[in-house]
Amino acid sequence: MADYYYFFLKNVLVVSLAMNMGLIWKISYEDEETLIPKWGNILHLHGSGLYAQKNNRVQEEEKEAHVSKRTQILATTSSGVATDGLEKVVINLDHGDPTMYEDFWKQKGEETTVVTSSWQHISYFSDVKNVCWFLEPGLVSAITGLHKAVGNAVTEGRHIVVGTGSSQLYQAALYALSPPDGSGPMNVVSAAPFYSSYPLMTDYLKSGLHKWAGDAYEFNKEEPYIELVTSPNNPDGFTRQHVVKGDKGILIHDLAYYWPQYTPILSPADYDIMLFTVSKSTGHAGSRIGWAIVKDREIAKKMTTFIEINTIGVSKESQIRAAKILQAVSKSCNHANQEAQTNFFDYSYKLMAERWKRIREAVNKTMLFSLPSFPLETCSFSGRTFGQLPAFAWLKCEGEVDDCESFLRRHNVLTRGGKHFGASMKYVRASMLSREREFKLFTERLPAIKS
Amino acid sequence: MADYYYFFLKNVLVVSLAMNMGLIWKISYEDEETLIPKWGNILHLHGSGLYAQKNNRVQEEEKEAHVSKRTQILATTSSGVATDGLEKVVINLDHGDPTMYEDFWKQKGEETTVVTSSWQHISYFSDVKNVCWFLEPGLVSAITGLHKAVGNAVTEGRHIVVGTGSSQLYQAALYALSPPDGSGPMNVVSAAPFYSSYPLMTDYLKSGLHKWAGDAYEFNKEEPYIELVTSPNNPDGFTRQHVVKGDKGILIHDLAYYWPQYTPILSPADYDIMLFTVSKSTGHAGSRIGWAIVKDREIAKKMTTFIEINTIGVSKESQIRAAKILQAVSKSCNHANQEAQTNFFDYSYKLMAERWKRIREAVNKTMLFSLPSFPLETCSFSGRTFGQLPAFAWLKCEGEVDDCESFLRRHNVLTRGGKHFGASMKYVRASMLSREREFKLFTERLPAIKS
Repeated sequence: MADYYYFFLKNVLVVSLAMNMGLIWKISYEDEETLIPKWGNILHLHGSGLYAQKNNRVQEEEKEAHVSKRTQILATTSSGVATDGLEKVVINLDHGDPTMYEDFWKQKGEETTVVTSSWQHISYFSDVKNVCWFLEPGLVSAITGLHKAVGNAVTEGRHIVVGTGSSQLYQAALYALSPPDGSGPMNVVSAAPFYSSYPLMTDYLKSGLHKWAGDAYEFNKEEPYIELVTSPNNPDGFTRQHVVKGDKGILIHDLAYYWPQYTPILSPADYDIMLFTVSKSTGHAGSRIGWAIVKDREIAKKMTTFIEINTIGVSKESQIRAAKILQAVSKSCNHANQEAQTNFFDYSYKLMAERWKRIREAVNKTMLFSLPSFPLETCSFSGRTFGQLPAFAWLKCEGEVDDCESFLRRHNVLTRGGKHFGASMKYVRASMLSREREFKLFTERLPAIKS
Repeated sequence: MADYYYFFLKNVLVVSLAMNMGLIWKISYEDEETLIPKWGNILHLHGSGLYAQKNNRVQEEEKEAHVSKRTQILATTSSGVATDGLEKVVINLDHGDPTMYEDFWKQKGEETTVVTSSWQHISYFSDVKNVCWFLEPGLVSAITGLHKAVGNAVTEGRHIVVGTGSSQLYQAALYALSPPDGSGPMNVVSAAPFYSSYPLMTDYLKSGLHKWAGDAYEFNKEEPYIELVTSPNNPDGFTRQHVVKGDKGILIHDLAYYWPQYTPILSPADYDIMLFTVSKSTGHAGSRIGWAIVKDREIAKKMTTFIEINTIGVSKESQIRAAKILQAVSKSCNHANQEAQTNFFDYSYKLMAERWKRIREAVNKTMLFSLPSFPLETCSFSGRTFGQLPAFAWLKCEGEVDDCESFLRRHNVLTRGGKHFGASMKYVRASMLSREREFKLFTERLPAIKS
């Protein structure tokens, strides 16, 4: 990863050298990032000698901090200082951080503002009558109300389990579905390309309960298995069904992206275990709130037990806030004639449609890349007919380029390569949910890239 | 556990039969519990036949809901309906739910009230320059400020990792300290009596990285091990040091109770890995916020990686609120002359001291029970000289009684038996942090119990 940083330093060096010695850069970005100016000045004094000098620090900071470089660099750019050399600005689209939604929520007022006193939410317990005893009753009604308004999932007669994001719920489901006294760990499969975190979340503790068994298309053992069905799929956005033909399978449906801004809603999903999250539905990733809709009471209880052992429940503050936000979204759905600014799914659909139009135009200007095409379908929620508008662009490098991630990295675009998803390295996953300035740079960068 | 329920039903039956047929019970408790009246009426109609009828439901609900019985019964009592038969009221002291602190926080105003708009905390990221990239900067300063004000832990030059409660941090530490390519799972030990959740949190996923190896006093293998040192100890409240003599050990210090309301602060703790939580320091268990103070940067990074895989960070809402509350507590510490109502640790110390006085008086009225004694020491924070005031009473049944948990259960007091802590069944752990009405019933019940 250190070579991303090399380009970054090179860029800062160029910008720095081009500047007046005494100038202090003022950067307006979140909490007033000031790393760039400091490094800029150091570079000015030490020149390229800094690279070797700072390389260790660079490497050790890279893992947790490559987003910070994006922040710093884009901050510089957006501040209007670095007007030239835009092609050297690193654009980080490796994560699916849903900052795209920030502008919508900024125009919301008290309706979605939460006030919490220090005496509230002291207890571990939310509703001791519920299978999921740490689930706030207000969140239950907000979740069921939203699914009813959108028509994307059946909740009647189902059990809801809240999790610290859907990642925890995925692990809770594996725990609940893997027999504790099985002869060996349960096979866990998903059709490639699959979400890059699934293998890691399945195997990071070397569990004796379950093990990652790879691409569901290639699974042919006569053993019990759990098949993870992600629909629409991360990374490629396609609608999915289970693919293993065996009769010993249990299914988990990850429906994080089954919302009207990403895909036409065709009917209320009705599977045994369905996972959702506010991170991708409303964009509140920082809240770490996900929910599972579970048919079987025993499975819901085991999932609850996992979360009880893992984290003794889920943040009450996040649950209360998520409830208020989901309620506001439901309310806005029931006023279809309101202006787009107040209807969340109308706003987010139009934004995604506009971004996909722009990225397809950018890709069509070059022979180097291609994007998937999606069939047109009519959304039962909006009545609109459209193809998928995925949260990620599953970009393919055409022609000679075999490692698309490295190729784009050389042009200062950070994406996640196909191999992480069990797919060809000719593919990369790029986030479509970034802030506008990053997305704009991305769509300007792509057509400008020469092989 | 179903027999707890039998006593509960029996009690409800008595109360119900004693009541006028048409009377509707009005219960004022949190969100207006109404289960009791419903069951009361059912009981009135079906009498004890209900027991068999409802037994399955009882059993399946027991695990997640025995606290609800407490709630319902005490609600009935506190409503003034059941004026007689108090000895039949079930008192649940099995959990350490810190509701005792609620009254203190109720008299706090805006200083500790948090207002959150819907556009805030959307991103996964809090501080990309920090090893723990999802840790809110405001929480870092609140944590370091509080430890400085109290003098119970060294934070200078240390790394702070935030977790979804200290349970997640315990698991993160095991992940960070267990070699991924070890010949076998790492041994994890703690001196008995040890916190009853440690064996479960260590083994619930049948991890190949680590395994519970029991009482540290009995560990004599020539193998690497992790020793968990809980000081003050849960369940018995004693100050602890590590006990294994081996030289292949790594230590984790769980200091959840190293606060001035529970124990005299002797010096700032300065260990490699120290775990704290707001659940027991300020009583905000519902927020699920814990923190680790870690000397080694690589360990802090690995712990951060665990939390990244497990839950992709920690609720921003809870972090922001915890920061505001910890800041207020620090501020109150720096005004020692203020009245107790405004100084959290002064208030909570006096409350714990008063409760321990009352429970010792209760136990001294009978020959059936005994409590541990603690040496007097002077607290560097308050200047007071006192013995430990543990969050749990480690109660021993004297004489003939061999199973103290069952014995107390027969008298409608729910506690956690010694076997769960790797100790004798003559001991039980009873929470000292309940609401006043439960604690009062407990101290009235103990002397009334006849063998």
